[in-house]
Amino acid sequence: MGTIRRRSAHGWEGVTAKAYPAFPGVEKHELTEGQGYRVRYFHVPAGGHTALERHPHDHSVVILAGRARVTLGEAIAEAGEGDVVYVEGDELHCFEALGEQDLGFICVAPPRPPG
Amino acid sequence: MGTIRRRSAHGWEGVTAKAYPAFPGVEKHELTEGQGYRVRYFHVPAGGHTALERHPHDHSVVILAGRARVTLGEAIAEAGEGDVVYVEGDELHCFEALGEQDLGFICVAPPRPPG
Repeated sequence: MGTIRRRSAHGWEGVTAKAYPAFPGVEKHELTEGQGYRVRYFHVPAGGHTALERHPHDHSVVILAGRARVTLGEAIAEAGEGDVVYVEGDELHCFEALGEQDLGFICVAPPRPPG
Repeated sequence: MGTIRRRSAHGWEGVTAKAYPAFPGVEKHELTEGQGYRVRYFHVPAGGHTALERHPHDHSVVILAGRARVTLGEAIAEAGEGDVVYVEGDELHCFEALGEQDLGFICVAPPRPPG
């Protein structure tokens, strides 16, 4: 049966936030695992950032709170609430929280490769 | 290369909203098409609803605005901003905008079946 995961003060009921090694305080919340995709939420404290990385799988990001400086290949751009970022497979990327507000975004990715 | 789709007053730059036959004013915005998933945004005006339907593919929904009465199989529940709803494949489902506010939600789904 389907489920409803309710937002709570610090995340979602039934979801344990995982620390993310790129920067202290960055959290990953695994929200759903669907038919060929995963939906996660990343919380990045003000001044923090995700890993600067590239890998074969892509990402679709929807920014829910704060402003981001986004590295996308050789480009750097700013993005804010409601903006949608598509990161291609093998594209260098990083999301950095700009200003004094925490950054929060949904990140959809294909399933982890086996192994 | 990756892309940034910017939120605009009525949707996203470069994304044409499509009418959705379930109810007048319901719109579907196709935001990204990734490696095995699609990310869409649904806008449901106050009093409106999506189709009451079931199909083999699943959905992962993140509510961004408003409140919803959610049909999930034989259950009916309410969900609000930030809540996450997972609809299993072949599960009956419907999202109805409750109260006087429009409802808006992200909906992730696997790719359309071929044909």
